[in-house]
Amino acid sequence: MAKLMLSFVAMATFLVATCVSADDSNPINDFCVADLKMDVMFNGIACKSPKMVTPEDFKFTGFRATADTNNSMGIGIIPAFAAVNYPALNTQGFSLAKINYAKNGLVTPHTHPRAAEVITVTKGEIYAGFVCTSGKLWAVTLKVGDFFVFPKGLVHFHVNVANGSAATLSVMNAQNPGIQMVANALFGSTPPIKSAVLTKAFTISNETSDWIRRNFPPSPM
Amino acid sequence: MAKLMLSFVAMATFLVATCVSADDSNPINDFCVADLKMDVMFNGIACKSPKMVTPEDFKFTGFRATADTNNSMGIGIIPAFAAVNYPALNTQGFSLAKINYAKNGLVTPHTHPRAAEVITVTKGEIYAGFVCTSGKLWAVTLKVGDFFVFPKGLVHFHVNVANGSAATLSVMNAQNPGIQMVANALFGSTPPIKSAVLTKAFTISNETSDWIRRNFPPSPM
Amino acid sequence: MAKLMLSFVAMATFLVATCVSADDSNPINDFCVADLKMDVMFNGIACKSPKMVTPEDFKFTGFRATADTNNSMGIGIIPAFAAVNYPALNTQGFSLAKINYAKNGLVTPHTHPRAAEVITVTKGEIYAGFVCTSGKLWAVTLKVGDFFVFPKGLVHFHVNVANGSAATLSVMNAQNPGIQMVANALFGSTPPIKSAVLTKAFTISNETSDWIRRNFPPSPM
Amino acid sequence: MAKLMLSFVAMATFLVATCVSADDSNPINDFCVADLKMDVMFNGIACKSPKMVTPEDFKFTGFRATADTNNSMGIGIIPAFAAVNYPALNTQGFSLAKINYAKNGLVTPHTHPRAAEVITVTKGEIYAGFVCTSGKLWAVTLKVGDFFVFPKGLVHFHVNVANGSAATLSVMNAQNPGIQMVANALFGSTPPIKSAVLTKAFTISNETSDWIRRNFPPSPM
Amino acid sequence: MAKLMLSFVAMATFLVATCVSADDSNPINDFCVADLKMDVMFNGIACKSPKMVTPEDFKFTGFRATADTNNSMGIGIIPAFAAVNYPALNTQGFSLAKINYAKNGLVTPHTHPRAAEVITVTKGEIYAGFVCTSGKLWAVTLKVGDFFVFPKGLVHFHVNVANGSAATLSVMNAQNPGIQMVANALFGSTPPIKSAVLTKAFTISNETSDWIRRNFPPSPM
Amino acid sequence: MAKLMLSFVAMATFLVATCVSADDSNPINDFCVADLKMDVMFNGIACKSPKMVTPEDFKFTGFRATADTNNSMGIGIIPAFAAVNYPALNTQGFSLAKINYAKNGLVTPHTHPRAAEVITVTKGEIYAGFVCTSGKLWAVTLKVGDFFVFPKGLVHFHVNVANGSAATLSVMNAQNPGIQMVANALFGSTPPIKSAVLTKAFTISNETSDWIRRNFPPSPM
Repeated sequence: MAKLMLSFVAMATFLVATCVSADDSNPINDFCVADLKMDVMFNGIACKSPKMVTPEDFKFTGFRATADTNNSMGIGIIPAFAAVNYPALNTQGFSLAKINYAKNGLVTPHTHPRAAEVITVTKGEIYAGFVCTSGKLWAVTLKVGDFFVFPKGLVHFHVNVANGSAATLSVMNAQNPGIQMVANALFGSTPPIKSAVLTKAFTISNETSDWIRRNFPPSPM
Repeated sequence: MAKLMLSFVAMATFLVATCVSADDSNPINDFCVADLKMDVMFNGIACKSPKMVTPEDFKFTGFRATADTNNSMGIGIIPAFAAVNYPALNTQGFSLAKINYAKNGLVTPHTHPRAAEVITVTKGEIYAGFVCTSGKLWAVTLKVGDFFVFPKGLVHFHVNVANGSAATLSVMNAQNPGIQMVANALFGSTPPIKSAVLTKAFTISNETSDWIRRNFPPSPM
Repeated sequence: MAKLMLSFVAMATFLVATCVSADDSNPINDFCVADLKMDVMFNGIACKSPKMVTPEDFKFTGFRATADTNNSMGIGIIPAFAAVNYPALNTQGFSLAKINYAKNGLVTPHTHPRAAEVITVTKGEIYAGFVCTSGKLWAVTLKVGDFFVFPKGLVHFHVNVANGSAATLSVMNAQNPGIQMVANALFGSTPPIKSAVLTKAFTISNETSDWIRRNFPPSPM
Repeated sequence: MAKLMLSFVAMATFLVATCVSADDSNPINDFCVADLKMDVMFNGIACKSPKMVTPEDFKFTGFRATADTNNSMGIGIIPAFAAVNYPALNTQGFSLAKINYAKNGLVTPHTHPRAAEVITVTKGEIYAGFVCTSGKLWAVTLKVGDFFVFPKGLVHFHVNVANGSAATLSVMNAQNPGIQMVANALFGSTPPIKSAVLTKAFTISNETSDWIRRNFPPSPM
Repeated sequence: MAKLMLSFVAMATFLVATCVSADDSNPINDFCVADLKMDVMFNGIACKSPKMVTPEDFKFTGFRATADTNNSMGIGIIPAFAAVNYPALNTQGFSLAKINYAKNGLVTPHTHPRAAEVITVTKGEIYAGFVCTSGKLWAVTLKVGDFFVFPKGLVHFHVNVANGSAATLSVMNAQNPGIQMVANALFGSTPPIKSAVLTKAFTISNETSDWIRRNFPPSPM
Repeated sequence: MAKLMLSFVAMATFLVATCVSADDSNPINDFCVADLKMDVMFNGIACKSPKMVTPEDFKFTGFRATADTNNSMGIGIIPAFAAVNYPALNTQGFSLAKINYAKNGLVTPHTHPRAAEVITVTKGEIYAGFVCTSGKLWAVTLKVGDFFVFPKGLVHFHVNVANGSAATLSVMNAQNPGIQMVANALFGSTPPIKSAVLTKAFTISNETSDWIRRNFPPSPM
């Protein structure tokens, strides 16, 4: 499991590390293609000189690839983020992801602290759901072409329930929505959260807590 | 031509007529599924009682259909809007559209006054572009899986350049982005814009202006 | 445990059920004291007639009480929310909470999907922390008078590490921030999340998953 | 015609080229007078050192001049923009323009992608209108002292219908609203939009399209 | 003096009393002309049915009049507010005012709690200034056609320094900016602020405080 | 009196002088701890490299101190601001203050141009009030633990009415709310506001105006 999650962590670390950003909802200009070489960090990413921008900058072809799903969760994720690989999204208020799923592939429960999300199925069949703050689960099965909406900040998950592989596309309405995989955040943080917090919260024994932790090795930082 | 455009106009009219809305970027609750039967109109749509909401409300299946492209522009559009057919998008800051294209099918130059847009190709090959306020055209050819971003409010278009039919998905970051087809707004408004404005703006004769107008019969209001 | 958490759930349900709200960041008027008797629901709460508003409306005295901490988590929470018991916060962009802690009392890991939070210690000593999206834990010990900030939407927790009881005050910058207790959302939702999702996410057995679940009985809805 | 429009294009180019901006609606400081010599570009313009700011910076006298209207459209425009000639508007959420009109002078149909606008007549008589997304034209005649509002992002125009010259003042609620002259964007972009898009959208022949294009020579970029 | 200020108070009271509003910065629709007969009050004003809206609604002719300046301050103010007399400004993010000044006419120091303002001189000569939070005064003399900007929320004033009468136009970037005349708020509130607060704040005697108060008779509420 | 107020002015000057800021309501990242050594100034403060951030950065201990109240107003203020002494508040939308009051200690009438505020009493008894734009005073007496809300931008004050000393905590929902002490802004600005403006606004004589001014010596800038 570590492998896949590390790639998540690596991506997230990069996002924080470059202090990626720009005001999502109030672009001041027609565009501000991110200059990913700048290392001054504000609440937004610096713009490339418009003279260096080409039409191809506004196009993203990274989703032509298929992500490797040969890992414990059976999923592969290709992000398309302003700060990572799609600089033209800077200030436009969007981020994207393509997900490939092996059979039973699962995107474990997670939140996006700064965005709502719409997801659509491009292959297979997906069971998707979110839990709202009253504790109610809203979950459905989606077929190819169907859409589902995850409200801002709420815990949600999606899992492949087709007989074979599956694929989805996600669009989030913030350029750096953040991704917090809940189990990883709790049992795989660096440094670890005190056992007493986790055992009490989940009503589990120290042994169980330690067992879970061993499956989320601390990420290198 | 009139037929397709009328359907646009009809949809747009409905949007205005129901004075659809809610604050896109600041949801106050987990969700506020639109109650489309309320006729009190604020800057937002009333919420259904949470007790009447079901998981299926958050799911949209309307894109399983294929829109008829048998019209002068060679396109068919299926919208997914909070105020029309996807009430769960109310307050979530998204609206969606699926477009089918016959060969050479064209979504003519238009703007969304209240949103940026990302588009992806699900079938065929699309030539897409926008003109920024400096007058520069940013246009590319997109293959299946590619994405393109249209900044907020700018004139843009997309046309099928495949040998056969094509299809795209659009996501806009506002629940009621507005759609203003430029040629229709200028030559097909009700009542008509004075000829002197159009002939001077386009440097065309009265005859040409009248000719164009006849192809955009006023919509019934 | 159920008891305390049910009170959370009850509060959260009420918040959703009354579809509480108003735009947090853009008040249009000096004030708009919530009229909690209105049952029309928009993305905001209706305003009382200004003639019915008194100076006492702007004052909140509910924190004079001490909340009962005689429950499994050893905490008691008094909320001060626009939609519940402090209507003058409507449109003002704030919500408040006072928390009493027995020895070892724990506010289990949770998120506020729509707000950042500052917390201060008024009695005892608190260990508080949050996990950011890169998986790093940022945790410290706070003494009386100290403040700590939890960024918007991130998982955080606070626990009494004093020898006796403790108390804190929280201020959130949204009138309805939402409270999502992570363990409850995952193991206590109604209906339950499929076991396969939880066992895979946490790398636990069905037995462990079932064990945890039994400690989070579904809330009545 | 080219001459006037080039000046538009030149201004717009400058706006993009300097990647002018700052968050319009959320100033963080009392003021942040733009430092137009900085060439680092974020979603906002750098602030001059407050020590270099004088009271005169907050005053704009450029409208004492009268703009030359000796061009094909019969109009002259004096902008007052944070990024061009009124740096104190940086972060204040406003931009201004004064327009002089010869007899029949026309500001051709255009949009502001990022602002609503109010206009008032200071001399003469103006016929002003906008087309909303339902295709309806809302147009009136304005006398000296009258105001009119153009909603955000919608196509609008204003023309002098007085017997002599006229003048108007415009205030937009964004510091860089953007100006997109529709006819120019479509028929004068660089590079040109494919003929097939324009002829189909306007139901005109290639000859007519080419004719119009010749009147909008590509702007130098 | 009372007379003029009462009219201010009356207007402000009306604004509060009708709980006027709508989200200024995020219109959801092309327009939402205020329905001033609705008495349900949210953080926004209800929209008239679009069928009842006419082009004339978007036009404001109230500034053709000249306001009476025969009062102690020598000024007359004509507001143009969404909630009062220009319903089409609802959701558009603007409010307007025309001010007539007798010789030495003074708009006394005041703030707009929810908007920045631009002012232009249409007749005479105006001395205008604001004090920023560091205590510095930024004041200049403006001639006909000149503009000045008052940052959001700061104390400012404008006074006629011409030999005869003068006039100005103001545009604020919120539909209900609020007007708080500082001297009136402090010495003319209902009920009065305790003398001890005022005498200490201004280092004045009880006699002086009482003297000032008598000139600001409490407004009827 | 000068002494205390100068410290206000000094703080405010620093805030302006460093052109402190960042978008309060739209953080792009989990955090952006302010790098107070950067001297490039945008509408926001630069972020420290995440590698330099420690958990202690998110904690503020400055309120353990008691501020000196030995001055003419009988108050001492300890601010906790992103740009001054609590860099982790950068982009989080909060600022804080602790106030100590001698007997009768008074925080004179003031506004925060860019924030609403909640205040709570931690010692003694406080009489707090605000005046809304209709001229109505909303004032109450607060005991330990009570809260009160001051709406955005309105004039407010708080005074110790206990027999001994008192203390309060304030939380504002903007990282740089601004503080404008009304009497100081009017009678202590640099340069001074013309006497004619003040005598007319307050209906006082030149002698009284001069008397008040002498108690607000111009701050050094």
